[in-house]
Amino acid sequence: MSDGRRRIRVIGIGAGHPDQVTVEAVEALRSVDYFITADKGDDDPLLAAREALLARHLDVVPPVVAVRDPERDRAPRDYDRAVVDWHDARASAYEEVLLEREGDAGFLVWGDPAFYDSTIRIVQKVLARGTVDAGWDVVPGISSLQMLAARHRIVLHEIGQPIVVTTGRRLREAIDSGADNVLVMLNAGLDELGSVLASRGEDWLIWWGANLGTPDESLVAGRVADVLPTIQGARDDARSSAGWVMDVYLLRLA
Amino acid sequence: MSDGRRRIRVIGIGAGHPDQVTVEAVEALRSVDYFITADKGDDDPLLAAREALLARHLDVVPPVVAVRDPERDRAPRDYDRAVVDWHDARASAYEEVLLEREGDAGFLVWGDPAFYDSTIRIVQKVLARGTVDAGWDVVPGISSLQMLAARHRIVLHEIGQPIVVTTGRRLREAIDSGADNVLVMLNAGLDELGSVLASRGEDWLIWWGANLGTPDESLVAGRVADVLPTIQGARDDARSSAGWVMDVYLLRLA
Repeated sequence: MSDGRRRIRVIGIGAGHPDQVTVEAVEALRSVDYFITADKGDDDPLLAAREALLARHLDVVPPVVAVRDPERDRAPRDYDRAVVDWHDARASAYEEVLLEREGDAGFLVWGDPAFYDSTIRIVQKVLARGTVDAGWDVVPGISSLQMLAARHRIVLHEIGQPIVVTTGRRLREAIDSGADNVLVMLNAGLDELGSVLASRGEDWLIWWGANLGTPDESLVAGRVADVLPTIQGARDDARSSAGWVMDVYLLRLA
Repeated sequence: MSDGRRRIRVIGIGAGHPDQVTVEAVEALRSVDYFITADKGDDDPLLAAREALLARHLDVVPPVVAVRDPERDRAPRDYDRAVVDWHDARASAYEEVLLEREGDAGFLVWGDPAFYDSTIRIVQKVLARGTVDAGWDVVPGISSLQMLAARHRIVLHEIGQPIVVTTGRRLREAIDSGADNVLVMLNAGLDELGSVLASRGEDWLIWWGANLGTPDESLVAGRVADVLPTIQGARDDARSSAGWVMDVYLLRLA
């Protein structure tokens, strides 16, 4: 990274609290000439959180270039294909900015770029096109799954046992394959959880959290059979008070 | 935590680099009256790294109370039982310090307390005894698995796919159950990896890292069949130059 070329830095900025960035990430934020972000419209609920974070750690906030997020097919027949198409469209948009603007560019990633985020793949796509010459690096950040564990004060597994990390979409697959300790990110709602577990007649525990690290943070833990309605209510509340909800949960067979 | 009671803080301090702590963790380090750590003897290889971290972030380093680590049966007939016994012995030792010393106590945890670390369980054990009255919280830290991803500049899964996080001891179990994207922590050597995969006749990719975040950091990636000897050599080199080796790797079916 010290070869004199311009740099692209993919910076994990944590789950929502402005102090949950690393010292290394703060230095990375300070090192770039501008940020590139996906513009999800003026009503992007994370816009204010991002501004608070930058204001907290930078004396002078460099330009934030908001790139219109390409339309994405939310109910595609081929999910993987739709994601790849959307990555290509994003790559073209980012490539355009990088060609227009000189200097080091920073991508701000909520949580950690290593989990269910497309930035690394898109930067690789841009660089593979050969039009932009840059070194690039990745700075890890605290993921919502770590915030979930910290706030509930739990270890994410039984002693020496495995964890399956997956998405709401693939929860059934994980449970059917015999996993008994499953961490779910990208949760799109609780209907799937209820229906996956209802048919099994087993006793599952859940540790759930929404909008972790923000003022609207919400936590519920207990037996799924007991607390699922409470979680549904807390999820609705988080959405009404914050205007958005991002939740994550750990399921463990009792 | 603001109820006026003394506090016990379990603080994740990242994988090895002194700047890979969060701003929140730095504030937590500054907030306590003393630290409690497991004394693994004067030749503890992490002693110097811990001192560097504290010196980097604290103007005045509070006392570090080193508690003799209880003997642990490394080849027990009953692994889980042995771990529980060892946790009990540690809990007694920590309880003694907390009873002798007033003020807020901080436990320093390498990586993140949520992954394959006993501190949370031991603090719960101490508090369950009812002799120490304290509020407690957990501050997340960057785990070696995140450092692995950041240094290799990879996402830890294919698009939307699951990750199994497990230990070297349970690698075979994960692979046998059909997992095709496995992150291994607490790796005790590469013999098991070689023997688990050798019998399967499949093409696996590996992203491996040792002593991540430290000056002796080492990275290797490629097809397992091609790079396993290189990794073995790099692992030996890391151990000779640092005096210790901690490694982690991601395996993915090609």
